Amino acid sequence: MAHRLDPLLAPRSIALVGASNQAGRIGGMPLDLLRHFEFAGAVYPVNPKYEEVFGWRCYADIESLPEAPDLAVLAIGAEEVTPMLERCHARGIRAAIVYAAGFAEAGAAGAALQARLEAFAAQSGMVIAGPNCMGFANLNIRAFTAFAAIFKTVAPQQEPGRVSIVTQSGNVCSALFGLTRQQGVPVSHFINTGNEAVVDFSQYLAFLAQDSGTDCVLGYVEELRNGPLFIDTALRLAAARKPLVLYKAGETERGAAAVQSHTSALAGDMALYRAGFSQLNVIQAQDFSQMADLAMLSGFRQRQGGLRAAVITMSGALGAILADKLIGAGMDLPVLPEALQQLLRDGIPDYGMVSNPVDVTGNIVNNPDFVRTVFEALATTDAVDVVVVNAPGYLLDRMADALADVCARHPRLFVAIDTGAAQSRQKLAAAGVPVFGDLGRAVQALAPWCRWLAQAPATARWAALREASGAVGGQALPASLNEHQTKQLLARHGVAPVPEQVAADADGAVAAAQALGWPVVLKILSADIAHKTEVGGVRLNIADAPALREACAAMREQVAKKAPQARIEGFLVQPMARGGVAELIAGITHDPVFGPALTVGLGGVLTELYRDASHRLLPVDDALVQQMLGELKAWPLLDGFRGRPLGDVQAACASIAGLSRAALALGPQAAQIEINPLLVQPRGEGAVALDALIVPAAAATSA
Amino acid sequence: MAHRLDPLLAPRSIALVGASNQAGRIGGMPLDLLRHFEFAGAVYPVNPKYEEVFGWRCYADIESLPEAPDLAVLAIGAEEVTPMLERCHARGIRAAIVYAAGFAEAGAAGAALQARLEAFAAQSGMVIAGPNCMGFANLNIRAFTAFAAIFKTVAPQQEPGRVSIVTQSGNVCSALFGLTRQQGVPVSHFINTGNEAVVDFSQYLAFLAQDSGTDCVLGYVEELRNGPLFIDTALRLAAARKPLVLYKAGETERGAAAVQSHTSALAGDMALYRAGFSQLNVIQAQDFSQMADLAMLSGFRQRQGGLRAAVITMSGALGAILADKLIGAGMDLPVLPEALQQLLRDGIPDYGMVSNPVDVTGNIVNNPDFVRTVFEALATTDAVDVVVVNAPGYLLDRMADALADVCARHPRLFVAIDTGAAQSRQKLAAAGVPVFGDLGRAVQALAPWCRWLAQAPATARWAALREASGAVGGQALPASLNEHQTKQLLARHGVAPVPEQVAADADGAVAAAQALGWPVVLKILSADIAHKTEVGGVRLNIADAPALREACAAMREQVAKKAPQARIEGFLVQPMARGGVAELIAGITHDPVFGPALTVGLGGVLTELYRDASHRLLPVDDALVQQMLGELKAWPLLDGFRGRPLGDVQAACASIAGLSRAALALGPQAAQIEINPLLVQPRGEGAVALDALIVPAAAATSA
Repeated sequence: MAHRLDPLLAPRSIALVGASNQAGRIGGMPLDLLRHFEFAGAVYPVNPKYEEVFGWRCYADIESLPEAPDLAVLAIGAEEVTPMLERCHARGIRAAIVYAAGFAEAGAAGAALQARLEAFAAQSGMVIAGPNCMGFANLNIRAFTAFAAIFKTVAPQQEPGRVSIVTQSGNVCSALFGLTRQQGVPVSHFINTGNEAVVDFSQYLAFLAQDSGTDCVLGYVEELRNGPLFIDTALRLAAARKPLVLYKAGETERGAAAVQSHTSALAGDMALYRAGFSQLNVIQAQDFSQMADLAMLSGFRQRQGGLRAAVITMSGALGAILADKLIGAGMDLPVLPEALQQLLRDGIPDYGMVSNPVDVTGNIVNNPDFVRTVFEALATTDAVDVVVVNAPGYLLDRMADALADVCARHPRLFVAIDTGAAQSRQKLAAAGVPVFGDLGRAVQALAPWCRWLAQAPATARWAALREASGAVGGQALPASLNEHQTKQLLARHGVAPVPEQVAADADGAVAAAQALGWPVVLKILSADIAHKTEVGGVRLNIADAPALREACAAMREQVAKKAPQARIEGFLVQPMARGGVAELIAGITHDPVFGPALTVGLGGVLTELYRDASHRLLPVDDALVQQMLGELKAWPLLDGFRGRPLGDVQAACASIAGLSRAALALGPQAAQIEINPLLVQPRGEGAVALDALIVPAAAATSA
Repeated sequence: MAHRLDPLLAPRSIALVGASNQAGRIGGMPLDLLRHFEFAGAVYPVNPKYEEVFGWRCYADIESLPEAPDLAVLAIGAEEVTPMLERCHARGIRAAIVYAAGFAEAGAAGAALQARLEAFAAQSGMVIAGPNCMGFANLNIRAFTAFAAIFKTVAPQQEPGRVSIVTQSGNVCSALFGLTRQQGVPVSHFINTGNEAVVDFSQYLAFLAQDSGTDCVLGYVEELRNGPLFIDTALRLAAARKPLVLYKAGETERGAAAVQSHTSALAGDMALYRAGFSQLNVIQAQDFSQMADLAMLSGFRQRQGGLRAAVITMSGALGAILADKLIGAGMDLPVLPEALQQLLRDGIPDYGMVSNPVDVTGNIVNNPDFVRTVFEALATTDAVDVVVVNAPGYLLDRMADALADVCARHPRLFVAIDTGAAQSRQKLAAAGVPVFGDLGRAVQALAPWCRWLAQAPATARWAALREASGAVGGQALPASLNEHQTKQLLARHGVAPVPEQVAADADGAVAAAQALGWPVVLKILSADIAHKTEVGGVRLNIADAPALREACAAMREQVAKKAPQARIEGFLVQPMARGGVAELIAGITHDPVFGPALTVGLGGVLTELYRDASHRLLPVDDALVQQMLGELKAWPLLDGFRGRPLGDVQAACASIAGLSRAALALGPQAAQIEINPLLVQPRGEGAVALDALIVPAAAATSA
């Protein structure tokens, strides 16, 4: 077989160990489904109690099967699982699904059972799904290995599946499947990952990325275990223009606690998840019905779109509401170009609206030629990326021909919102126009969809940057670094330091100050002191030599008292920074899932209160850093807000991109690197690191 | 009749001028509906072209009617409207509905027509709805005066209506009616207000507040024209525990532009709308389906609830998702008390969750006694206000008896979310348990509903405060006030000023500084200069007498140059403020809708960027101001954030409440009053106004 997970997800033959002849029982439900949906492969129920179940011969044990099937489904208790896996392996079976709960999610005894299972998998190479999972369904080959009641309750699908669902919860898998089918979207794979002892979420995702029957993936995640594979796979899906829509639980503290209590998974840093998802062009879902709507939209993914919308409606009120909603959801409603407004004015009554939203009024539909002209103009103007047509059913019906016709000739995405019961919905969908029945739901799906379309080039660009930046690590991190050495290290990667001099004693400090210019800042120099202010190791605004000598003496004394263990290497003398436009903080952390990541924000206490920070996975280049700064609510401070001088943003970006390069060169040895603050001076005058700190991995762990 | 609007909204007899015999035409549709739904009163079609329409005798003109009906519905062109109203009035008809468009919404000619209509209404006292409106429906007496196609497309209602809909858009009225009926909620009044030339939104609302058939109002507003009546009516509805749910268009700039273009209505200050709605306990809706859900919930308004929720689910994942969603929507999920957790632990398997969300696991439903015990405990614990039960249909069915039983004995609100297709939905609803079919929609409706329940006492308290504060105005505003006089005026209402002295010249300034203590701030004193800094009229941190003398001379010179017209009254000398915990801004404005309102925020450029401000309608008292400060994201700065001293919040609140009293005493004479900054000192040391400004109404208008 082509893929390692094929025996799990596209089995040609299936044994069910612990088979039951009752469709309502776990050991019976998959057999009932395989029979009901007429799975074409071989099915081997295994249970010494029966001769036959659901019309198949039932075997006493795994050893008596006539062949080694692709897959064994184990509907047996947790204690029996690993012994049975050993027998399956001995029988030549390469893959198994474990339904049983009572493993890592259930205390110490369960964790021991799971460790044993994992050890067996590692040693045998067997591909094992679960434990504590509901199993799968491959609807295209009608291979049902899930004990889920949902399959028989929804309309059977006629077309081949094109959307796959992969979740860390069985209940969520069923709910998403039901909603997706309600939307009429055909499904390929139904995958519930369970405890992911052996095969994790990202591995299933990697399978789906190469699956020709999967054009779109809906997922539910509590924790990502394999960050690098997730990143690779998400980029692969993005490159293939297959939308990946993920619901991430644990957004709030209580939600995260629930997640942890649920599967002992750590919810992770949500801000970083959000940033990472956005960078990888993963659509972060807010709602299950929204996910089903996005699955529906994914059927129209060949149509071109973006975040600038034109709204066409028959009602001024609904136009205003749509404008509010689309903009609230992050889209833009540009004022239409004057020529286009003029064209609209010619056919729209006085009480209509021609700017955007456009209110063509109900009267307009008596003029089909004009409607066609309007659509044609909106399909070709450079001013918008997507067109939203909102009309009550019968009016939409009147416009359907014109709409279908224009969409056949132009690739731009047109979306219809039918607030009635249009007859033309099917026809429009066939012509490439998705139709929504609810205004709120339409916006909730359309906005992230358009963001997905718009973000694609940026994600491709980042993928290339990541490719080009090569492997992480390579540069050795010295065992200890004082502030000056830290800045020198970072400077080699492009982080501009403040001009500063090291002085052994007060005489040296005075000489340094004279060279640098008064007033100066005096700092204690010691690799052992991370937080200098707390031990009296920083004095600002020293005006002259006597004051500096006094400060040196006082500082020595105070530091000796407060940090008696610290080896003192002397003093650091810096010119007192003045005239800065803003102070930034730039920090690197190593996320357990996403790896090295950069956080940028404005320095100071208010920024912390307002949580105004921007995050990115590494690598970043100058352009990406500039984008991050632009995302800050405080950005106007760097951009001439209320007559302030423009900041040297270019220099700030160069230094922060240098920080990113340093972080990649050092790799995980440096658990944390921080420039705090980076003083941004007026345009043309640069940006300099006033202070910097590298926390080695060992120190971070022991802290 | 009891109410002035009765002839419009509860007519006993109806004439339709411009009657048509075709149900699809504006002049025919209401007649068709009146016939179809069997209106019991008299119906008089008027049109010289017909002898009979829809089985009623048709009259040639209004003069030949056998009686003066309660209401005339005019399905005639805009130009003909006022002449016909005059004839109706002459015939003794007291009320009319005007369908025609082409009035204020349609340019200068339309505006003239509307002015004529308004003049006639003022002179005749006739009650006129519209123009440019769709009309009404009183479903309880089956009086249909609206040309709306929606009525025959929804299931006829059996129960008496209890929810009324009032909107400034006909399309929205129809959409809301359809969704509300889809939810099975019976409707009383369908009201589309149109241009509101004579009867405005708030007057309809006042009618509904006294209508015994209205327990809940859904509304759509673009502009409120009568703020005081709106406030009175909203408070009346709140006092009667009748929820008022309003969708306000114009949230974004483009949305506001669309609103303005639509009905030439100004969208108003959205931040103030939001604050006012919250203060009046008006539920501000986000979505039409949410409004229908709230209408459904209003059927359960006798049940007690609040913002602290317990979540009971059969799925850890759905528990985590619900926790995220409820908290994201502003609710709270307290950790359950230990005793309650212990009770849960006794009956829930190890892999379940007992903290909150509670995952009872699917196994639990085999134990109905335990389920009952859990519900009973949750119905009586002090730790939560509302209980959310989430279960797939068949599991919900198993718990339905226990749930109904507990709800029969306890007033606490239990809400069920059925992610399947439970048989027990009706039964649960009858037992007082609202059932939702979708998790996202459930949270979107439940959170504002619980906020409505929780906010009721605060709104009642404010209504009493407003009652007690009496009439606005009474104190004369001097023609001109300099900074010192402004502070003296405000001080008489309780705003603490910074100690300061007025000096005629440099000698006086030095004497003042010696009395106040060095260093000092020097300001130019002139009632003609509002922005002192801009003309060089402020010098900070003056350390000694020579510097002060120099500053006085330089300031005189500079001000004379930059503001040569200003009459200079001398200097103001203040001690240089130090050791403040934070600087606040407190400002009063007069909103055209809501009247005098207070805005409080942190001073400084970042607060402006982060839009961190809190708003309230006046009056406010110390407690309300404290709540406003607590709403600021920057609140921790006053509350000991990261080891900072606690601010004197009590003193700050007293000064700001004093500002509110001053504003009410001055009334609309003072267009704007601002304290900027109010320096909040450490606890026990007070809060003082460093600067203050009153902008008289005349100046604001001429500016």
